[in-house]
Amino acid sequence: MKHIEVCLTPALLPLYDLKGSVVVVIDIFRATSSISYGIDNGADAIIPVASVEECLSYQGNGYLLGAERNGEVVNGFDFGNSPFSYTRELVEGKTLVLTTTNGTHAINVSKNADEIVIGSFLNLSAVCEYLVKQNKNIFLLCSGWKNKVNLEDTLFAGAVVNKLKDKFDALCDSSVLAEDLYLAAQSDLHEYMKKTSHSERLKKLGIEKDIAFCLNVDLIHSVPVIKEGKIVKSE
Amino acid sequence: MKHIEVCLTPALLPLYDLKGSVVVVIDIFRATSSISYGIDNGADAIIPVASVEECLSYQGNGYLLGAERNGEVVNGFDFGNSPFSYTRELVEGKTLVLTTTNGTHAINVSKNADEIVIGSFLNLSAVCEYLVKQNKNIFLLCSGWKNKVNLEDTLFAGAVVNKLKDKFDALCDSSVLAEDLYLAAQSDLHEYMKKTSHSERLKKLGIEKDIAFCLNVDLIHSVPVIKEGKIVKSE
Repeated sequence: MKHIEVCLTPALLPLYDLKGSVVVVIDIFRATSSISYGIDNGADAIIPVASVEECLSYQGNGYLLGAERNGEVVNGFDFGNSPFSYTRELVEGKTLVLTTTNGTHAINVSKNADEIVIGSFLNLSAVCEYLVKQNKNIFLLCSGWKNKVNLEDTLFAGAVVNKLKDKFDALCDSSVLAEDLYLAAQSDLHEYMKKTSHSERLKKLGIEKDIAFCLNVDLIHSVPVIKEGKIVKSE
Repeated sequence: MKHIEVCLTPALLPLYDLKGSVVVVIDIFRATSSISYGIDNGADAIIPVASVEECLSYQGNGYLLGAERNGEVVNGFDFGNSPFSYTRELVEGKTLVLTTTNGTHAINVSKNADEIVIGSFLNLSAVCEYLVKQNKNIFLLCSGWKNKVNLEDTLFAGAVVNKLKDKFDALCDSSVLAEDLYLAAQSDLHEYMKKTSHSERLKKLGIEKDIAFCLNVDLIHSVPVIKEGKIVKSE
């Protein structure tokens, strides 16, 4: 039986071996939610880059450029990682280039994996079905907040463990922890998330609507995956 | 109001500033449980050292030498970190020198703190009362297992958060996570711990009695603290 492991922050990644695994990158507030939404809304591709400078180097040539740092749109960019910047109207048929505080970092450090999938509550069931089909070991990588553990990414990892634990071994302590946290929170994710300091901080940024949106379960059915450095819709 | 922070593994310590804080080092299975039990049973002091070699350098001079690696007593040493090696009969009036896989490492990396306290379920309430008296920021450091997050240390951190959250701010996501895990487990810690791979591994080592013992809440009332590099009973 293949197994599931949960890594609660990218800072712990050196302790694990990703070879042969499918990595699910998780940054619920908001990068991987927005990326999933954008791909579902018909974006051709989203190119994740590490730095604002790298993002700027794509200027011209018809790309849409997004950059977020510390929860805010970087000066001079049109959008950051609010899901409402990833509607069909705005992204259909376009290629986006995106750098974010945590999410694109997590993608960049996962390069040893067999495959990288983008996960969010918006496409929870679709991601789980995709993982079952791949039949490889699963590695759930929470982006966290500046390398610290956060609740929302842990909750999502727990949701995946909960859905897949009959088909995969999920015995690592972080998997147990994540699932039990999800079980405590699942009846009202939005209410539960009020506990977190991260949510408090996001509230100060005036993005409560984004938070509520990112906690919608199974709103969409696309599974974004990385092919040749670009995030595209899985086949 | 002073605050509580939880650090789920020593690997995340570089993200935090310990200055001015009281650090509680947590290694439930079994180092900090056994240390607390030994101090309560009248050991004069326990000297935590990083390596087996350093431990050996204390040989002679009346010290008791303990060394544990990967859950087993190191060859040539009289004891490791089983609490049953720390009874009054064995340790009263003695000074012990101890090196363990995870717990003594966590002590050694906490040296920037104002003060270091040794915590376990055995002395949970005593530790909490001590922390209230100190009236400093609290930093709960889980030793984990080889830098990975483990359930038992997280549960203990959650128990402390649960007891102290009316007197301290406990807003970091790891505190919320640890407390909620504890609330899910508290009605039967022993049953809950059967979930963990770590417990499974410890079972293979034939130390189920140790595990059961380390989950006794408030068996003792001593609070071990570090003074001049030695663990002694707090005044």
